[in-house]
Amino acid sequence: MRIGELSRLSGVTVPTIKYYLREGLLPSGERTSPNQAQYGEVHLQRLKLVRAMLDVGKLSVTAAREVLAAIDSPGSALHGVLGVAQSAITPRVAASDDDNWKAAEDLVTGLVAEKGWHVKPTNPAWQAVIQIMATSRDLGQDDLAALLGDYADAAERLAAAELAAIGRRSDVDSQVESAVLGTVLGDPLMAAVRQLAREDASYRSMVGEA
Amino acid sequence: MRIGELSRLSGVTVPTIKYYLREGLLPSGERTSPNQAQYGEVHLQRLKLVRAMLDVGKLSVTAAREVLAAIDSPGSALHGVLGVAQSAITPRVAASDDDNWKAAEDLVTGLVAEKGWHVKPTNPAWQAVIQIMATSRDLGQDDLAALLGDYADAAERLAAAELAAIGRRSDVDSQVESAVLGTVLGDPLMAAVRQLAREDASYRSMVGEA
Repeated sequence: MRIGELSRLSGVTVPTIKYYLREGLLPSGERTSPNQAQYGEVHLQRLKLVRAMLDVGKLSVTAAREVLAAIDSPGSALHGVLGVAQSAITPRVAASDDDNWKAAEDLVTGLVAEKGWHVKPTNPAWQAVIQIMATSRDLGQDDLAALLGDYADAAERLAAAELAAIGRRSDVDSQVESAVLGTVLGDPLMAAVRQLAREDASYRSMVGEA
Repeated sequence: MRIGELSRLSGVTVPTIKYYLREGLLPSGERTSPNQAQYGEVHLQRLKLVRAMLDVGKLSVTAAREVLAAIDSPGSALHGVLGVAQSAITPRVAASDDDNWKAAEDLVTGLVAEKGWHVKPTNPAWQAVIQIMATSRDLGQDDLAALLGDYADAAERLAAAELAAIGRRSDVDSQVESAVLGTVLGDPLMAAVRQLAREDASYRSMVGEA
């Protein structure tokens, strides 16, 4: 199909498709003349994935490009792709050397040890968790620290369920896509579902049902 | 204290503090001369909260201002402030009328009914959940739909734990701040903790421990 048809089917405007092509988020079409290229089902599917990453997952173009490169690298093993995808979507945080940071670091290290989690020190999520706990401490609020174990339990259960769902897929490409979407769409999904659950919990507490 | 001291104690530059003052994120100091104002402990604490919302929670200035206004409104009841805070941080999503959207809407309505959750139709999280499920469907991936119940269970447990922690605080102001931080910092915290849990689950599955 031509770019106009790709635009119609995907609901993405032609200038935006051209932007994705320039940014390397979408592979080039097959050139049929100097000014024309043909696109196929693979482009349509990729375009949907790009929109999911940018619009719903709120990834930056750079992060989306890294995730796609990991998906496309030949012979991608699931563990490796997952690592790249997660690393790409986690904002980098610089460590600090103040007391709140150190206390938060101890708290997170203690949690990981207690759970017996195998996580590399290079996983950027370490620093992200530490930053949030340090911020909470700096504000004199210790509720998040008290709830950290509940967060870890919930995260562990979800990770096991996710991995089981991924394992039920037969081919590696489909496993990789499921794992990436679980990360890219799974975080905003959890945030939104929590809002519904919070409204319910807050309502019940207000009416004395809690 | 003068603005320079406020800057030193908070680690926020003077131009940034002036920007927050202009944007209404920080209340004015007490004017002691045409070019000078005095700031107090309340400004320092508010500055930390603003940084937490913008830098860690990734809220927009507009969303942060709405949350602060809710916190500051006299006689704020917890349920109301929570609603405003959640509403401010949830991106608005326009409904669509395609088949995937309708199917996703049925799925989410069914979930809320099954859980017996009391949530108003105006909670923007409804649309956010529907958008994510519709996107996942559009990509031909049904793993997220299969996991939606696990997400809801996890969210429900966390909401109950959060609310219990909030209830242990004696004064309303402190309850409100805890509830707001649970929302603003709690979502990125969950995302980061999930990344650690996913790396562990993926590692165990790779080495055959799962």
